[in-house]
Amino acid sequence: MTKKQEIPYKIYLTEEEMPKYYYNVRADMKTKPAPLLNPETLEPMTAEELSQVFCEELVKQELNDTDREIEIPEEIRNFYRMYRPSPLVRAYCLEEKLDTPANIYYKYEGGNTSGSHKLNSAIAQAYYAKKQGLEGVTTETGAGQWGTALSMACSYFDLKCEVYMVKVSYEQKPFRRDVMRTYGAKVTPSPSDTTRIGRKILEEHPGTTGSLGCAISEAVESAVSRDGYRYVLGSVLNQVLLHQSIIGEETKTALDKYGIKPDMIIGCCGGGSNFGGLISTFMGEKIRGESDVEIVGVEPASCPSLSRGKYAYDFCDTGRVCPLAKMYTLGSGFIPSPNHAGGLRYHGMSPIVSQLYDDGLIQVRSVEQSEVFKAAIEFARVEGILPAPESSHAIKVAIDEAMKCKETGEEKNIVIGLTGTGYFDMFAYQKYLDGEMSDYVPTDEELQTGFAGLPQVNL
Amino acid sequence: MTKKQEIPYKIYLTEEEMPKYYYNVRADMKTKPAPLLNPETLEPMTAEELSQVFCEELVKQELNDTDREIEIPEEIRNFYRMYRPSPLVRAYCLEEKLDTPANIYYKYEGGNTSGSHKLNSAIAQAYYAKKQGLEGVTTETGAGQWGTALSMACSYFDLKCEVYMVKVSYEQKPFRRDVMRTYGAKVTPSPSDTTRIGRKILEEHPGTTGSLGCAISEAVESAVSRDGYRYVLGSVLNQVLLHQSIIGEETKTALDKYGIKPDMIIGCCGGGSNFGGLISTFMGEKIRGESDVEIVGVEPASCPSLSRGKYAYDFCDTGRVCPLAKMYTLGSGFIPSPNHAGGLRYHGMSPIVSQLYDDGLIQVRSVEQSEVFKAAIEFARVEGILPAPESSHAIKVAIDEAMKCKETGEEKNIVIGLTGTGYFDMFAYQKYLDGEMSDYVPTDEELQTGFAGLPQVNL
Repeated sequence: MTKKQEIPYKIYLTEEEMPKYYYNVRADMKTKPAPLLNPETLEPMTAEELSQVFCEELVKQELNDTDREIEIPEEIRNFYRMYRPSPLVRAYCLEEKLDTPANIYYKYEGGNTSGSHKLNSAIAQAYYAKKQGLEGVTTETGAGQWGTALSMACSYFDLKCEVYMVKVSYEQKPFRRDVMRTYGAKVTPSPSDTTRIGRKILEEHPGTTGSLGCAISEAVESAVSRDGYRYVLGSVLNQVLLHQSIIGEETKTALDKYGIKPDMIIGCCGGGSNFGGLISTFMGEKIRGESDVEIVGVEPASCPSLSRGKYAYDFCDTGRVCPLAKMYTLGSGFIPSPNHAGGLRYHGMSPIVSQLYDDGLIQVRSVEQSEVFKAAIEFARVEGILPAPESSHAIKVAIDEAMKCKETGEEKNIVIGLTGTGYFDMFAYQKYLDGEMSDYVPTDEELQTGFAGLPQVNL
Repeated sequence: MTKKQEIPYKIYLTEEEMPKYYYNVRADMKTKPAPLLNPETLEPMTAEELSQVFCEELVKQELNDTDREIEIPEEIRNFYRMYRPSPLVRAYCLEEKLDTPANIYYKYEGGNTSGSHKLNSAIAQAYYAKKQGLEGVTTETGAGQWGTALSMACSYFDLKCEVYMVKVSYEQKPFRRDVMRTYGAKVTPSPSDTTRIGRKILEEHPGTTGSLGCAISEAVESAVSRDGYRYVLGSVLNQVLLHQSIIGEETKTALDKYGIKPDMIIGCCGGGSNFGGLISTFMGEKIRGESDVEIVGVEPASCPSLSRGKYAYDFCDTGRVCPLAKMYTLGSGFIPSPNHAGGLRYHGMSPIVSQLYDDGLIQVRSVEQSEVFKAAIEFARVEGILPAPESSHAIKVAIDEAMKCKETGEEKNIVIGLTGTGYFDMFAYQKYLDGEMSDYVPTDEELQTGFAGLPQVNL
C-alpha cells in the first residue's frame, strides 16, 4: 500500500450507531414528487384507493411528504441487525491500481443472502403486512433479486409469499427460483392459469415466455381478488426509497465517524430504489445548502430513461393495471435491446429521483455495457468482490472520475453505491469474457415508438 | 426477542484486534502428526523433495511442528483486511425459534466472493509463490470453491493460475468456471490433452467425465514439468490448517471481548481445513489443560472417514502421484454414493485432525443428508443466511445440542463454524425441496473394498 491508512479498510457502525429513522427526502424537496394517478379516472389516488392494493401503513408512507424522519420499528431494526450495518469499504487496492490521488469508498449492500439492497425494503413491507394482520403478499420478479429478498423477509415474519416469476427467468434461473422456495415462497411462472389476465394472455399468446409487465398484472390481480393479501413492489415507489434511505443514513454516519466529507456520490439507476436510498440524506443537506456534494446517477445507454426520456405521467407496468406515475420515462412499451445484460431495464424512474433530476440537483451519465463489464472485472480483480452488472455502472463512472483526479491531482472523496453481487449474473460475464457482448444505443426513432404510447394526462 | 441482548448480533474485531500470527497447533500436540511419505520410496519426504512440488516457504510451514505462532506477513494481512475479520454472529433468531436456553454463535466465513473459508489459505499460498518469484501455480477443483478462491488470490498478486476442473463440474457448473475466468484463471476441463496422464486416461476411457483424483494428477504433472510453477492444495495439508487457524484466532478474540467461554465448538469435516482452522487455538488451550471445551467434528454418514475409517498411511489422491499421509481414511479408492450432495466427499482426513481424534481430543458425529438439509432450511429461514451443505452438517448438530439444552435447562455456549454459502449448491436444495433426496450409509462390505486398496507401509 502506498497511501497512509488512517481510515480502516471497512468502516462498520456499532449497533448503537445504526439508524433508528428512515430519511424522507420529500420533506426537503421544494417541488414535491407528483402524486400517483388512478389509471381509470386519472385523478390522484386517495389513501383509500391505494389501500386496496398496498398495506395501510405503507400507503401512509407513500403519501407522507412532510416528515423528514420516520421511525424504523424495533422489529425491523432487529432484522437489520442480522445483516446490517453494511460496511463502507475504502477501495485502497483499486486506488493503488489506478494510481489516483482520489479516495474511493463503496457502500457494499451485497453481503446478505438476497445478494442486494432489496432486502432493506422487503423486510419493512413484510413487517407492515404482518402488523396489519394479513395472511400474505404477492409480487413479481424478473431476474429474481426482489423475489428472493421478499421470500426471506416473509419467512422471518411467517407470512405467505407468492411470487410471479417471468417464465423465461423461471426456466433459465432455476437456482434463483429454488432459493425462493427454500425460504418457503410459492413461485409461479408467469403467465399462469391462476389469474384471469394470465389465462387471457396464454390464450392469445400460447408460446409466450412472459414479461415483467404481465407478471406485475398477475401479482396485482392475485392480491386484490382475495381477502388478506396485498401487493408489494421492490422499486420506484416513494415508500421503497424511504426504506432504502437506510443505505445513505449509514453511509453518512460512517463518513462522519472519520471526518470524511464526500465530494461525489455515484449510484446506478434502474427504477431508482438504490440510488434514491443512497442519496436521500446527502440530498437533504444539499437542498438545505449545507453541502455542495455532486450527486451522479448512472444509467445504461441502452435504457436511458433520465438522459433521453420524457418527464411525463406514464404507466408503471406494461399491463397498465397499476397507478400512473409522473416520471422520466421511455414509455411503458419501451423494451431494451435483448443484448442488454443485467438489470436497469425499467422504462421509467422513481418519481422522487425524477423530480430531483428535473430540479437540476442530480447529474446523469449513461454508459455502454462493454465498458461496464471491463470496469467490473478490473474492480473484482483487486477488490475481491464480484459486482452485479447494475452496480458496475457506478464503478465505471467512479473509475473515470478517479482517472480525472490523477490528471488534476485532486484528492476527491468519491462514494459509490455497490448494490449487490454478480453471482447470478455469470451468463453476462461469460458473454463479455467470450467477446460476445455488444453495445446498443437506441436511435431517436426507436425512442419515439415508446413515447407514442404515453397516456394523455392533463392535470 | 425474548432474551436480553447484552451481546451484539455480530461481533466484529477492529483492524487492530485482527490476528498477526497463525496458530500452529502442532506445537501443542504431544503426538505430532506423522510425516508425509514419498510414494515411491515410502520414506519421509524431505524438504528438498517437497520443494519440487510446493513453494519453499510453504514446505517450511508444512514441516514446522514446534513454533506455536507463525507470523502472518503484512501483504497477506492487507488482503485479509478486505474481507476479514469475518463476523461472529449470535444466532438470536434461531435460539428464539428453538426456544432453547443455549447461546448459539456462528463464525461466518461465507461473506467473500469465493463464498467460503478457502480464500484464507489461497491468499497465503499465492503470496509465498509470488515471493519465491514463481510465474504461476496449478491446482485442481471439483465443485469450484477452492479454484475460485485461488483465482481471486492469484489475481491480487498478479500470478498465473491454472485450474484443472473435473470435466463434469466444468460442464454442469459454468458459473463457477466463469467466476474463475473473471479473475483471470485458465480453467481446463480434466482429463485434458495438456498432460501425459490426461492423454493416457482419455485414451483408456474416451467418454470419462473426470474425477478429482485425475485432476490432481494433471495439476501436479503440469506444475512439476515446468520451471516457475508449483502445485497448491486447498485442504488436508498442515500448511492449509495453519492458514485456516485465523478462523479460530478471530473467534477466540471475539469471544474474549465479551467474556464468553465456549462450552462446545462444532465444525464440519471434509478434508479438515475448516475444522482444523476453527479449533486450533481452542485445542491448544485444551491440550494445555486451560479449558475443557468439547470439540465436535461432523461428517456425512455417507463418507465417514473419522467414525468408520482406518488410521493408516494412504494416498492423498486416487491417481497416487501425491505423497502418502497417515490419516483416518476410507481408502483412496472409496467413492461416496453419487446421491451425496455437496462437499465433504474426501476419502481421508487431514493428518492433524486425524491425530487429535486418535488422541481422544475430538468427538465425532455422523449425520445423514436429508436431516442436514432440513436443518439448513430451518436455519436459513430465521437467520437469513443460506448455508452451504457442508456447513449445514455443523448446524444440524448444533440444533440437536440446543434441543438437549432445552431439556436440561443448560445455558451452553455453542460455537459453530459456518464455512460458506449455498448459492452454487441450489441443485442439492432443489432435490431436497422436491423430495428427491435420499440418504445413504455404506455397508461394512462396501468399506472393505476401500480398505483393501490401502498401501502396505511399515515404518
